[in-house]
Amino acid sequence: MNRKDLLGIKDLSKEEILEVLDTAKEMKKILNGEKYSQILKGKTVVTIFFEPSTRTRLSFEMAAKYLGAHYGNIEVATSSVAKGESLIDTIRTVEMMKADVIITRHNMSGAPHLMAKYTDASIINAGDGINEHPTQALLDMMTIREKKKSFEGLKVAIIGDIMHSRVARSNIWGLKKMGAEVRVAGPSTLMPPQIEKMGVKAYYNVEEAIKDADVVMGLRIQLERQKSGLFPSIDEYREYFGINKERMKLAKADAILMHPGPINRNVEVTSEAANAEYSVIEEQVTNGVAVRMALLKILCERRN
Amino acid sequence: MNRKDLLGIKDLSKEEILEVLDTAKEMKKILNGEKYSQILKGKTVVTIFFEPSTRTRLSFEMAAKYLGAHYGNIEVATSSVAKGESLIDTIRTVEMMKADVIITRHNMSGAPHLMAKYTDASIINAGDGINEHPTQALLDMMTIREKKKSFEGLKVAIIGDIMHSRVARSNIWGLKKMGAEVRVAGPSTLMPPQIEKMGVKAYYNVEEAIKDADVVMGLRIQLERQKSGLFPSIDEYREYFGINKERMKLAKADAILMHPGPINRNVEVTSEAANAEYSVIEEQVTNGVAVRMALLKILCERRN
Amino acid sequence: MNRKDLLGIKDLSKEEILEVLDTAKEMKKILNGEKYSQILKGKTVVTIFFEPSTRTRLSFEMAAKYLGAHYGNIEVATSSVAKGESLIDTIRTVEMMKADVIITRHNMSGAPHLMAKYTDASIINAGDGINEHPTQALLDMMTIREKKKSFEGLKVAIIGDIMHSRVARSNIWGLKKMGAEVRVAGPSTLMPPQIEKMGVKAYYNVEEAIKDADVVMGLRIQLERQKSGLFPSIDEYREYFGINKERMKLAKADAILMHPGPINRNVEVTSEAANAEYSVIEEQVTNGVAVRMALLKILCERRN
Repeated sequence: MNRKDLLGIKDLSKEEILEVLDTAKEMKKILNGEKYSQILKGKTVVTIFFEPSTRTRLSFEMAAKYLGAHYGNIEVATSSVAKGESLIDTIRTVEMMKADVIITRHNMSGAPHLMAKYTDASIINAGDGINEHPTQALLDMMTIREKKKSFEGLKVAIIGDIMHSRVARSNIWGLKKMGAEVRVAGPSTLMPPQIEKMGVKAYYNVEEAIKDADVVMGLRIQLERQKSGLFPSIDEYREYFGINKERMKLAKADAILMHPGPINRNVEVTSEAANAEYSVIEEQVTNGVAVRMALLKILCERRN
Repeated sequence: MNRKDLLGIKDLSKEEILEVLDTAKEMKKILNGEKYSQILKGKTVVTIFFEPSTRTRLSFEMAAKYLGAHYGNIEVATSSVAKGESLIDTIRTVEMMKADVIITRHNMSGAPHLMAKYTDASIINAGDGINEHPTQALLDMMTIREKKKSFEGLKVAIIGDIMHSRVARSNIWGLKKMGAEVRVAGPSTLMPPQIEKMGVKAYYNVEEAIKDADVVMGLRIQLERQKSGLFPSIDEYREYFGINKERMKLAKADAILMHPGPINRNVEVTSEAANAEYSVIEEQVTNGVAVRMALLKILCERRN
Repeated sequence: MNRKDLLGIKDLSKEEILEVLDTAKEMKKILNGEKYSQILKGKTVVTIFFEPSTRTRLSFEMAAKYLGAHYGNIEVATSSVAKGESLIDTIRTVEMMKADVIITRHNMSGAPHLMAKYTDASIINAGDGINEHPTQALLDMMTIREKKKSFEGLKVAIIGDIMHSRVARSNIWGLKKMGAEVRVAGPSTLMPPQIEKMGVKAYYNVEEAIKDADVVMGLRIQLERQKSGLFPSIDEYREYFGINKERMKLAKADAILMHPGPINRNVEVTSEAANAEYSVIEEQVTNGVAVRMALLKILCERRN
């Protein structure tokens, strides 16, 4: 992958995705083995998250440390950004401290792309607005690949708040490139009007979407949003779109269940389903570290 | 010590306590020497504190780093926990990132025990509600052991808010196991009604409790609690229970003075007493790092 | 430099400043090269910032890590300090965890000096009230030295809120010691009445101050302060004191433009000027890491 940055799945070729997944497989051996490497010795990785997150930030931190990089974090709430420093000045300041890779999450779509233009450091997008969350899609693809022989013709049903989900968008782009068939399902109020232009089939009934699927992927519902009185309510969501054991029976016999976490248990997915033998939700977390190690390795190698 | 977790002193045998104290003595040599070891190379230690704390968290962080472990921290205020993630999902997520040891503090008694049941990672209880604070008791015992020949028959007076003190409870259990005689003293409003069932003698007069003691241990008063108008007020506490040079004269000639910190100077202990030659309050801080190094070493060795 | 602490520039001799700058030059080679050293292996560096800061804290963190030290940070908001612990107890607790160097920023002038008296750890002042910000002045001098042959007779114009600027004070003391001629300029409301007693010439007109200068140094305006209705307003400041390309033409042909950051773009300095070829603002950030590496090295060497 001959790129300075990892900004989105939309830009990546199938070959580039495969390179990341192959490297991640190597990295997982370190993770399951010695958990100690000096591959990134002398490299500097900094996280700057403009939206709160712990899972993703910690996952990147551990990925950097397992590979022996220097790691630093900027808390935005207490940072110069709070003093009104511009996004670009922030990023360039961190670069001037000799950061090789800067990982950022921002509530504005496109913020990492803007940053990338103004720095020689490599930028990894850890989620931007409702645009993309590429490392999540990569870890999801890694998890699917471990369980299924091939992406070709695979039926993947993504269920939930499609409209606001950067996870859904990155997965749609990635899975389509890999040859899978992607279906999305959710309440009509949470479905982008022109979603089928992304090459997916939209369902407004969860059973239809799950039927014969190889992969069922729940998305996180922003409870705050639902609490504000929109349709559906949490109870309605659970009743009409919640993934449970009954509904999972409609999928293929060897189907797997995924969720990016953190789960609202018994809303998007029942606890029973999340804990069932077909659930790969926890493996996704481990693969998240492996994929991030792979990206750090690939981006840093190019810098040498 | 053949345990996955360190949840409390109540469960430990005398032999297990001695193993920790012996190991801590070894660790203290590293602390006072090179301050660099690779004993925990490739191991991952993560702190998740649901109650704010810096001393204890930093002590664990330094213990992990001095032994060469990977270290990460989750800030609960900004974490998925704030998004409503369950305690168990949080802990399992951190395990899936390949944490070997997770150190946690929680305002609910029993929270670390619940976590321990649902993860293969080792859990260390860094304080749970008003139940236990086992690493504090271990460092206290280490400090006493350095100064006194034997625990057998040693008279230890614990002074303060016994009712809300997890430090007192862990120390009572630990010191009793080691053969010491434990007295507790404090205002009747801050004394648990059935405290003597723990095998200690309760005093409501500080002079009587200190008389002939080998060890005098002050506890932190939660000023917030006292300010809410309860008896005693801060002034009353100082007058009737504050440890000062006069009162220390009642103890044995070679008695030592302890406090878990942070001290409210001139409330629980006068500055004069805290700074006197018999005070071992600062040595307790150093021993805290040594004891935590020992626990990390012991728990990680079992994982190999 | 045979000192336990680095508290201010005022105390330093010319020789000591040169020693730091020479060492920083060596450190910059590590920064621009392998970015990996074990010079501080086994040493412990802790930051405790009582005023929020990210740039400076991260700069110290990276300096410590690039040299292989153990690094920890105390978040004051969630620390024992919030529970009412005394400044001295906090610092001694960190020392007892075997900190070699404690780096602190405080809104009270003189706080680091107080701390230094009560601990055997080395204290570095990362900014105290309106008193000093010595590491900023050292990195500024390092930057000037890289661009100009000698400090002797160099004309340096410092422009902005002189009254509240610890950066200005540290630079005035440092640059004067090195033989430079220092001018300060700013609105009369932000100029200390007796400033000329520091051996500088005060200007109330930015053009006069910049005329024939070798170095033009803007200072950060605290927008909060200006918003509260004081003279000058932000618009007035920009008009009468903002550094722009036109005004830079009054300086020497080879003059350089500096700013400690973060810049309020188009207030203190126009974006055009900040991005011009004579601007060394970003080099200052890199030199900040180098100077801090140098100080850590020098202070730790003395501890061996």
